[in-house]
Amino acid sequence: MTSAAPTPAYRRLSVEERRSQLLEAALSLFAHRAPEEVSLDDVAEAAGVSRPLVYRYFPGGKQQLYEAALRSAAEELEHCFAEPPQGSLSERLSRALDRYLAFVDQHDTGFSALLQGGSVVETSRTTAIVDGVRRAAAEHIVDHLAVRDPGPRLRMTVRMWITAVEGASLSWLDGGKEPPLDELRDWLVEQFVAMLVASAGRDPQTADVVRAALALEAPDGAVGALARRVVPLLGDAARLL
Amino acid sequence: MTSAAPTPAYRRLSVEERRSQLLEAALSLFAHRAPEEVSLDDVAEAAGVSRPLVYRYFPGGKQQLYEAALRSAAEELEHCFAEPPQGSLSERLSRALDRYLAFVDQHDTGFSALLQGGSVVETSRTTAIVDGVRRAAAEHIVDHLAVRDPGPRLRMTVRMWITAVEGASLSWLDGGKEPPLDELRDWLVEQFVAMLVASAGRDPQTADVVRAALALEAPDGAVGALARRVVPLLGDAARLL
Repeated sequence: MTSAAPTPAYRRLSVEERRSQLLEAALSLFAHRAPEEVSLDDVAEAAGVSRPLVYRYFPGGKQQLYEAALRSAAEELEHCFAEPPQGSLSERLSRALDRYLAFVDQHDTGFSALLQGGSVVETSRTTAIVDGVRRAAAEHIVDHLAVRDPGPRLRMTVRMWITAVEGASLSWLDGGKEPPLDELRDWLVEQFVAMLVASAGRDPQTADVVRAALALEAPDGAVGALARRVVPLLGDAARLL
Repeated sequence: MTSAAPTPAYRRLSVEERRSQLLEAALSLFAHRAPEEVSLDDVAEAAGVSRPLVYRYFPGGKQQLYEAALRSAAEELEHCFAEPPQGSLSERLSRALDRYLAFVDQHDTGFSALLQGGSVVETSRTTAIVDGVRRAAAEHIVDHLAVRDPGPRLRMTVRMWITAVEGASLSWLDGGKEPPLDELRDWLVEQFVAMLVASAGRDPQTADVVRAALALEAPDGAVGALARRVVPLLGDAARLL
């Protein structure tokens, strides 16, 4: 019995499989077009099914499909910052950012449309989903800082960096995806280090975090490279001390 | 003839005056309530006029009033970062942030609702207005950096800081307006310095900007204070150099 049965041209999918298939089709359309430019017919065509079938699974039509696709994207994004607590902070952040920026790259138009707002599919529900992603990312980062009870300064620094990463991502998409992703990633890690250090000047808890984080950095790591590039620039600033 | 004529209880306003009065009433309502919670009747009542009169000036109703109020707020915000090119960069930024943060403080609920998005009055027009404010702020800041032809790294750093300021403002409003405004202002100035310095490590143009800016800072200024607080923290990092 070496010859397998031929794959049927059409296979009856389970409810769950069909739903996933429709969602996947919707997500890939919403990733590369503004929500205004995606119709239910497009989703049906991309999934190779009829429009009534899409309605059977998503009676709320495009709005419901968009929200379901966004929820599934949000889940993926939330996982970006879930990183085992191993290695230096800059290594962990780099790995998380690699995943986050790959997502931005793969969902470019949809990511811009979503974060720039003002789209017809935007509701208080969709903004709550986006805000949930930010909150989850902030929690993951705070966890990596190994602080039991993070105070407002530390939390605000993390939140500022997250919005800065969003701003940089939009800017990167606007500007034709320059610089290359790995450079952008390293730069964003450096920005986090810089922002933490500046906050450490005002907040003893952040100062403890910075000291602990620096102790784990290797001379040939990202923070060492940053220090070697920046210290010579600051020679003139010695008179300010 | 020492006794002036008594002020009439009702004065006929010119078209422009009436429009301004209605806008002002709308702006003060939209400042402290979510757009969903402001009705045309509220605006009429606050301005002491009839609902039909509001419609005569704003036939598009609440949406038109909201957009007009937002446009007037945007103009005010754009002026925050228009600052004479005198003094050190940290002094100029401090004065600009004083105005910006006073605006955030005075328009708290409306500011949050606007930037968090998902509101019923949000359209591509309203997001374009908000984006215009960001762009204008970025232009003003780049002007203060005295660079003739700002490259992408410098532009992205400025944009990242602007989004970080927005994130911090929202965080500040969420957290019961803590820390006090002048502390928040100083902290945000320090964040800008830190972000610029980190970018200077990768970008010769930003490095020139940092050197020129440091040359104008006084030892008893904001950057001097930052340096004195931060340098002792970084003693451990010498092994990374």
